[in-house]
Amino acid sequence: MSASDSVTAAILVIGDEILSGRTKDRNIGYIAEYLARIGVEVREARVVPDIEAEIVSAILALGERYDYLFTTGGIGPTHDDITADCVAKAFGVAIDEDPRALALMMERYREDELTPARRRMARIPAGAALIENPVSKAPGFRLGNVIVMAGVPAVMQAMLDNAIKHVEGGALMLSETIEAAGLPEGRYGEDLRIIAEARPTVSIGSYPSFQDGKFRNQIVVRSKDAAALAEAKAAVTAMVAKLQGDCLPL
Amino acid sequence: MSASDSVTAAILVIGDEILSGRTKDRNIGYIAEYLARIGVEVREARVVPDIEAEIVSAILALGERYDYLFTTGGIGPTHDDITADCVAKAFGVAIDEDPRALALMMERYREDELTPARRRMARIPAGAALIENPVSKAPGFRLGNVIVMAGVPAVMQAMLDNAIKHVEGGALMLSETIEAAGLPEGRYGEDLRIIAEARPTVSIGSYPSFQDGKFRNQIVVRSKDAAALAEAKAAVTAMVAKLQGDCLPL
Repeated sequence: MSASDSVTAAILVIGDEILSGRTKDRNIGYIAEYLARIGVEVREARVVPDIEAEIVSAILALGERYDYLFTTGGIGPTHDDITADCVAKAFGVAIDEDPRALALMMERYREDELTPARRRMARIPAGAALIENPVSKAPGFRLGNVIVMAGVPAVMQAMLDNAIKHVEGGALMLSETIEAAGLPEGRYGEDLRIIAEARPTVSIGSYPSFQDGKFRNQIVVRSKDAAALAEAKAAVTAMVAKLQGDCLPL
Repeated sequence: MSASDSVTAAILVIGDEILSGRTKDRNIGYIAEYLARIGVEVREARVVPDIEAEIVSAILALGERYDYLFTTGGIGPTHDDITADCVAKAFGVAIDEDPRALALMMERYREDELTPARRRMARIPAGAALIENPVSKAPGFRLGNVIVMAGVPAVMQAMLDNAIKHVEGGALMLSETIEAAGLPEGRYGEDLRIIAEARPTVSIGSYPSFQDGKFRNQIVVRSKDAAALAEAKAAVTAMVAKLQGDCLPL
């Protein structure tokens, strides 16, 4: 894969607790931002419950479509942690207690502390590379293009730093943000559309946010081509300045 | 649909800014928690970019599979706001400027302020019911089982209060949380699995969180059947008490 190609990824968040609203996902945003910094574009994210058929089907759909698939959740010691088994099923490989994983866990647990539940965390699909977990030892793993990590954000983040060794990045997506101060989107939407349509190598978005009863609009231009980015930024900046000038009291 | 049936939903978050990590999604968790309170179970969530084919395909997949589909994002005035057109395409219906939507917007804008960009926000698929937007007037809509809302959380939340009139809830999912104080998941995982397997009408999950260098584990039992829930809670509570007792120094 050359550095100029797009490298793509999907994120699969596994867990009933996210879909019930009990736990608010913080992993999608963290992984997306992290991958963007190394030139990997996240193209899709999904959240599925702790149900084997749902997890396997999402792994197959996303793993086939994107260069990498990052999963979070479902690799702990309890009965609802079934991600490793689902990955094995999706790849059609065996899964068993992995001596390498057990060895890592024994850095933390005495042998008599390795309960049947904890030993579940050493179940790793055949052929997978382990991803070390400095926080709680039970490892994640990579099998093919699928990278399996914990769901607890602090643990996932530590694993991601290790997982990234398995990931080949692409050309960096560059971006610039232009504040559309004082301008509602409706004032510049049409002009911005014309600017965007004339620049196929640049992606332009307008992002309103709402705080203290007021909208704040930011226009973001993104491209892998620095010259195209600079030209588009100049065009958007000129448009904003012109419309702001129009707004001055006569 | 009787009150005892499961009422299901999916959430579709639309927007490049979520997949780039620039904006962190807060809508999935909010909607999931909101719907759970009226007995609607969110079974899946997806995040897709501002690309027509991706949005249409996700609307079709999720809309066919679940009782309701809630979308957020992509209904503003700029060129990257294409959700309404994608819904029209998914349903195979026409889309045009809707006089009802224009009338709502004219409560806020003078006619000369209705720029071409703003008028885009009045484009509503044929046959849709409008969902009022008390914050910024441009409405969301419901077409069939698809409920289309804004992406800015404050606006989405105001729309959701109105959208909910279009939603028929189900039997409430009841839940109880048991703190597994002092117990790592690995100590109770096996016992909890046995408790869970014996109770098919109850869903039991174990949720670790990590704060200040320590894990906190909570066991959540969920059911629509109050008696089954109480019995399962008692079983889990007894298990936790027994294991905590085992931990006391001899």
